[in-house]
Amino acid sequence: MMWQATVLTLYPELFPGPLDASILGRGAAEGYWALDTINIRDFSDNKYGSVDDTPAGGGAGLVMRADILGAAIDSAPRNDRPIVCLSPRGAPLTQARARTLSEGAGLIALCGRFEGIDERIFETRDIEEVSIGDFVLAGGEIAAMALIEACVRLIPGVLGSASSLGEESFDGGLLEYPQYTRPREFEGRAIPEVLLSGDHKKIAAWRREKRREITRTRRPDLLERFAKDGPIRRDKNKEPER
Amino acid sequence: MMWQATVLTLYPELFPGPLDASILGRGAAEGYWALDTINIRDFSDNKYGSVDDTPAGGGAGLVMRADILGAAIDSAPRNDRPIVCLSPRGAPLTQARARTLSEGAGLIALCGRFEGIDERIFETRDIEEVSIGDFVLAGGEIAAMALIEACVRLIPGVLGSASSLGEESFDGGLLEYPQYTRPREFEGRAIPEVLLSGDHKKIAAWRREKRREITRTRRPDLLERFAKDGPIRRDKNKEPER
Repeated sequence: MMWQATVLTLYPELFPGPLDASILGRGAAEGYWALDTINIRDFSDNKYGSVDDTPAGGGAGLVMRADILGAAIDSAPRNDRPIVCLSPRGAPLTQARARTLSEGAGLIALCGRFEGIDERIFETRDIEEVSIGDFVLAGGEIAAMALIEACVRLIPGVLGSASSLGEESFDGGLLEYPQYTRPREFEGRAIPEVLLSGDHKKIAAWRREKRREITRTRRPDLLERFAKDGPIRRDKNKEPER
Repeated sequence: MMWQATVLTLYPELFPGPLDASILGRGAAEGYWALDTINIRDFSDNKYGSVDDTPAGGGAGLVMRADILGAAIDSAPRNDRPIVCLSPRGAPLTQARARTLSEGAGLIALCGRFEGIDERIFETRDIEEVSIGDFVLAGGEIAAMALIEACVRLIPGVLGSASSLGEESFDGGLLEYPQYTRPREFEGRAIPEVLLSGDHKKIAAWRREKRREITRTRRPDLLERFAKDGPIRRDKNKEPER
């Protein structure tokens, strides 16, 4: 069955948008995945189409209503897909989680807007809150695009050559090694000798060492996590416990 | 002067895309910020418009050439703006960094594609590598959108009421408190009494406690960082050292 993303949003016209470019667009055209949207506003109970109201207890802005969101969520065919709400309060998205999601039937993405979402929707529905990072966006739409792109490119066939997935950032808990290509010299800087040596063993060793070095310098937290959790096992459905 | 984002990309047609919706679109229309794109392909040196070549040392995929990227970067008016390359190897984007960027003149965003970018561009240009999270995308475009959205909504005037910025996730290093709105009862669940009490002191105390509780449960790492760095000072240009 095709991997299916259903996006619940107040801005369905933004989709597929950037998800239609390049390899993701080609992947959709070739039937590896599909995207549909549900306009939350269609579930408004009033002639103004409003879906929000003032926060209980006061404060600025507006809060999305649980009853309207509930109706919108319940209208989406579930098909064994998790409901994911993009929110800075959520669990940080990891490559391991994206991989697990890519191996499933797809996902239902709920995009918040305004000041937030009535908490009772999380108490009454089985919703996984996911954050793409420790910053605040104007709405969940761009975050949903990031999540969907991270998943879809991992679906076998979408990238064309599976080997492009072989050694990239976060495989084995490490960042990627530096890349070089022609020209051989650029502004006085040469491509490192070893990469031109033709010695594949040496090249592999150099790249391994560079991955460790870059990760150690830039993201020692990844190395610590890796040491604690062990390598990300790509053949398992579950990501390592964190 | 207006906050200006210049995006260097192979897919200029994706912009502004989702950045034109809602408050960001209104903010652009009202002159708070502007976006322009530079098509990297325009700096190709061949009739095929190619901008990439095979990786030195072998491996799958293609690498973006330093000479072509250099010409594209150098064509962008700098105007005191940082050059930011979206990459999983970069420093994780934080709300504090987005705030600092929003207080500057704008940014120049470099969007990679393919297997990566020739490392020598980072050695010869003053480029800040920024990551929106520990996952891999098909290109830097959606990450650039997330970065730009996070910055632009912080530009005074864009959100309309500055108070909507008052108590959101990551202010004071904490996640947001839960929100509620009408209806008073939803699927058997009532809005917490205290929020309907009209006692603003009690409400503020309840929300403070909820922020701590949610952060402790979901993201103890944020509390640790907060304890170490102290509160994020919103009146300073520099984010706290990490």
